[in-house]
Amino acid sequence: MTNITIAIENGETVEMPAATTVGEALSELLSNKQRKRTVAVTLGDQILDFSTPLYNDASLGLIQIGSDESLAILRHSTAHVMAEAVRELYPDVKVAIGPAIDDGFYYDFERSEPFTPEDFEQIEAKMTEIVRKALPFTQSTLKSSEAIERFQAEGEKYKVELIQDLDSESVTLYQQGSFTDLCRGPHVPNTSLITSFKLLRVAGAYWRGDEKNTMLQRIYGTAFFDKKALKKHLNMLEEAKKRDHRKLGKELQLFTMQDEIGPGLVLWQPKGALLRKLIEDYWKEAHYRNDYDLLYTPHIARQDLWKTSGHLDFYAENMYSGMDIDDVRYQLKPMNCPFHIGIYNSNKRSYREFPIRWCELGTVYRYERAGALHGLLRVRGFTQDDAHIFCMPDQLENEIFNILDLNLEILKTFGFDEYDIYLSTRPDKYVGSDENWEKSTEALKLALEKKGLEYKLDPGEGVFYGPKIDIKIKDQLGRSWQCSTIQVDFNLPERFKMSYTGSDNQKHQPIMIHRALMGSLERFIGVLIEHYAGVFPLWFAPTQARIMNITDAQADYCDEVYNRLRKAGVRVEKDLRNEKLNYKIREAQMEKIPYMLIIGDKEKDCNTVTIRLRNGDNIADVTIDDFARKVAEECLEGRGI
Amino acid sequence: MTNITIAIENGETVEMPAATTVGEALSELLSNKQRKRTVAVTLGDQILDFSTPLYNDASLGLIQIGSDESLAILRHSTAHVMAEAVRELYPDVKVAIGPAIDDGFYYDFERSEPFTPEDFEQIEAKMTEIVRKALPFTQSTLKSSEAIERFQAEGEKYKVELIQDLDSESVTLYQQGSFTDLCRGPHVPNTSLITSFKLLRVAGAYWRGDEKNTMLQRIYGTAFFDKKALKKHLNMLEEAKKRDHRKLGKELQLFTMQDEIGPGLVLWQPKGALLRKLIEDYWKEAHYRNDYDLLYTPHIARQDLWKTSGHLDFYAENMYSGMDIDDVRYQLKPMNCPFHIGIYNSNKRSYREFPIRWCELGTVYRYERAGALHGLLRVRGFTQDDAHIFCMPDQLENEIFNILDLNLEILKTFGFDEYDIYLSTRPDKYVGSDENWEKSTEALKLALEKKGLEYKLDPGEGVFYGPKIDIKIKDQLGRSWQCSTIQVDFNLPERFKMSYTGSDNQKHQPIMIHRALMGSLERFIGVLIEHYAGVFPLWFAPTQARIMNITDAQADYCDEVYNRLRKAGVRVEKDLRNEKLNYKIREAQMEKIPYMLIIGDKEKDCNTVTIRLRNGDNIADVTIDDFARKVAEECLEGRGI
Repeated sequence: MTNITIAIENGETVEMPAATTVGEALSELLSNKQRKRTVAVTLGDQILDFSTPLYNDASLGLIQIGSDESLAILRHSTAHVMAEAVRELYPDVKVAIGPAIDDGFYYDFERSEPFTPEDFEQIEAKMTEIVRKALPFTQSTLKSSEAIERFQAEGEKYKVELIQDLDSESVTLYQQGSFTDLCRGPHVPNTSLITSFKLLRVAGAYWRGDEKNTMLQRIYGTAFFDKKALKKHLNMLEEAKKRDHRKLGKELQLFTMQDEIGPGLVLWQPKGALLRKLIEDYWKEAHYRNDYDLLYTPHIARQDLWKTSGHLDFYAENMYSGMDIDDVRYQLKPMNCPFHIGIYNSNKRSYREFPIRWCELGTVYRYERAGALHGLLRVRGFTQDDAHIFCMPDQLENEIFNILDLNLEILKTFGFDEYDIYLSTRPDKYVGSDENWEKSTEALKLALEKKGLEYKLDPGEGVFYGPKIDIKIKDQLGRSWQCSTIQVDFNLPERFKMSYTGSDNQKHQPIMIHRALMGSLERFIGVLIEHYAGVFPLWFAPTQARIMNITDAQADYCDEVYNRLRKAGVRVEKDLRNEKLNYKIREAQMEKIPYMLIIGDKEKDCNTVTIRLRNGDNIADVTIDDFARKVAEECLEGRGI
Repeated sequence: MTNITIAIENGETVEMPAATTVGEALSELLSNKQRKRTVAVTLGDQILDFSTPLYNDASLGLIQIGSDESLAILRHSTAHVMAEAVRELYPDVKVAIGPAIDDGFYYDFERSEPFTPEDFEQIEAKMTEIVRKALPFTQSTLKSSEAIERFQAEGEKYKVELIQDLDSESVTLYQQGSFTDLCRGPHVPNTSLITSFKLLRVAGAYWRGDEKNTMLQRIYGTAFFDKKALKKHLNMLEEAKKRDHRKLGKELQLFTMQDEIGPGLVLWQPKGALLRKLIEDYWKEAHYRNDYDLLYTPHIARQDLWKTSGHLDFYAENMYSGMDIDDVRYQLKPMNCPFHIGIYNSNKRSYREFPIRWCELGTVYRYERAGALHGLLRVRGFTQDDAHIFCMPDQLENEIFNILDLNLEILKTFGFDEYDIYLSTRPDKYVGSDENWEKSTEALKLALEKKGLEYKLDPGEGVFYGPKIDIKIKDQLGRSWQCSTIQVDFNLPERFKMSYTGSDNQKHQPIMIHRALMGSLERFIGVLIEHYAGVFPLWFAPTQARIMNITDAQADYCDEVYNRLRKAGVRVEKDLRNEKLNYKIREAQMEKIPYMLIIGDKEKDCNTVTIRLRNGDNIADVTIDDFARKVAEECLEGRGI
């Protein structure tokens, strides 16, 4: 047997026999303390765990506790331990698959009985037993035929089906304790690292996501390397539940969705519609100020248009089926771009017009599986805050800079100061010349740098038609939401034969930029509801103030206050019901109304109001004009003006 | 033969033998002068012409030259004369049908050669020959079989088909000179009344409007009782041609429609979109001020919804075919009502909330035959300025009054001071109780009267679900456009089982009002373009001012003016091209831009601008602030604020 040389990132090397496992090599190369902090290693772009044998010289990076990768590995291993526990407790279950996901993991089980909260306690107890045994996760490779036999003997039909579909000679298995799973790994070295976990909920999930298949039970859980991090996360989940925009949307009467009309289709109730209008007005004003022109385009177009645009070839599964009009087939629009291009092509264009900046609040319809729908965050009909910019190559950097400027202004105005920015570059399959790709990618980079923005490079993750910048915003609970996208497009200008006359009097093809800053109004408002827990800043709170009388004696004065404030532009309501003041206050608080205006005899006599804030503080002796001014100023400030 | 007594409206009577014609009776009853002013008579709700025999006592009203009815009769007769002329000139033609229409008449011919403008001259000359002969229009009644034989002998296959389809024992024919037509009449007494006519254009028209049939040639013409009225009308048509919104829409770059996208689907170009936005903003502000809440609803819904609403039973031919999503059928919305009802039904409702006033700029899609499409005036996708009001019966009158108030304010703001108002009452087939119909119709009447509005009663012309008020506006050329509609609906509240809790704590069904004031944005803007000939009032002119420099020396100052005016809210553009000032002015005039701001060295040195008006007048030495103020004031005034 030959020897191989194994190096780690600090420069240490060791020579060991081939087939030495990563764990064995690390025992030589790292101190015990260091090794305990290490969960797995990287070799090139692979992640290997301790049980992986090495056959060649290798230079290993360390994945240490605390990194995102370490958490994903821990959660994947916890999923296996959960499966082991479930199998021991309920021998009749069939196991399906169990990956790590954002913030946790799940495992799918077939079982005739539904899992209950009591079952969760039992499963967690059994898991604790298993992890205390510090069982190693060991890897083995088996011929597929042998693996099939083995799982068949165990009655694990889903595993058998998976191996059959893999259509490979051999497969990798992982075992800990009594449980063996078809799995590529990687895993933590042993179960003792699984100290802090929690099962969260159970949900139905079709085998392989296909509604024609058996409905399985998916148990979700999460895991961390220490109890403190787990507790923090569970608190965040608790808080998120309170902020759930579906719950708040119903309580605050912002929107409704109805099965009779169709899942994923939003009906904006008066307060939600007003909130949406205020956001739209701000958006339009900001775009006008930034020299964008507004467009309106239809919601349907002939199928031919979607052929020309390529949507029918590359996007058909997201589009609704067609409908016939005079024997011509039409389809709902999943995107606005071909319409904006139609307007571009409705006239001859000259470089003198450039940059052309066209924006639209364009409502599009995209097919989403019913199971994927989620309140406002994943819908079937939504309104993009879309824009397309047509410019010359040497204008690109400046345009991207301007977009970033407007983008961050808008995010900041809505209270989002933290974000992650990603720059995605040329993928393997692409259209457009290499030169265009390089120049454009460079322009995006320069614009980001000029704006002083940190970004992460996503090499090869650009769309086939051009490089792009994505921005994920962080909400008050630290959760990330994909939001803005800025994409260069070399494809559609070619497909639609777009051109302009340059200063050289020759025809050229324009550069096209797609961009959506909020993404979609529906999703953005969903995020806003959760970000603010429904306690909206004054400038886009649908109701800004509610007037409440103490007795009927002040009703007329309340009407006067109401009329004067409305005329002054304050979004005010009145509650003159014959109810106790505390009852009215409690209702207004439930509805998260920023200002309550309490009116008794004193206020009536002095021509004032008493302001009660959401936190319960009172400000007495405020004149009506002063209150209107206060509201106007606070709104301007909120909008960053 | 028995005698009959014939009376006319002034009280004169005469006794004559039965089968006396109207003409013969009038010769006895009227002076020659009076008779010459008379075109036909009314008997009950029938119109009879001079050739009609009378068999019973009759009391006749007179239709005299100048009335709408007299014009329709004249034009119908002129169509027959045109057909006679065409048949004499082109013996190979087959004649189809030739009715009077608004403002004129047409006749459809089958002919292999196309009619040309030169043919028109010939036809008109031949018509003049015919009318000079003062040929009487004589009526006769024939057995259908004989009429068929006769037309078959003449090769008039369309007439044969018409008679066959009538499926009646006998038919009425009218003859003048060499021409006999299948026709119910009435006609003028003889051709000498046809003194002032003009053939206008020829267009293709399918036999019976069915695209599967032969394409005929439809010759349009018009006729009046005197040359002056004809000339006035032809001038109006000339002026209308200049104002054609399709032509102006293209010249002013307001909108485009493209076959690749689909006929009847509007793409709003930047200037048109801005105009639309300004109108929408005003509309939303006016509705907010009038205590309406805004809604947004989706463009598609499950077919089941349209079953519940009754649209699939009564409106299917106007709806686009369905599309499948997860094996559920969806359809584009032709109306917004079911969605607003969905929002109503999303909560329990109490009489305390009433009246609920919900408005939406809701984009709907309705099937129109390709041949019926006409610029913005008849489209397939359009945005209704829709609203629904839910109230108690005793609130109805006040709500209608408020709607009329807002309606007239909006029309006036857009420059429409003249309109015809129609109140349509219960038709033969209807839903809802008689009591509700009576009370509601009374409420509509009272509201109209309280508002001091004259209206015409259209008995029996209400929709099956309730009485309604329609408003037709008159434009600067005196043309009428159907615009606003206010409809009470007893049907949908029943179908959707809508209810509210009354002050008696019992469940009741709300009254529902549908209303659209502009009708649709597309159509209304089409009318606005023609009404103003593209010369829009300042407050909704997409561009309010254009800055023009005389030489490059003022370019920087022009930028300063531009930036200051934009900041002050003026919709300003700049034209700093190296072109002669007159050239720039001519372009701005073509684009009908309200204010040109001319900037030379003098203006630059004095920090002023020279305003050039659309009519060519100049106002010198205006400061930038003064100009901005002037614009702001003029806009407020224009919006009636």
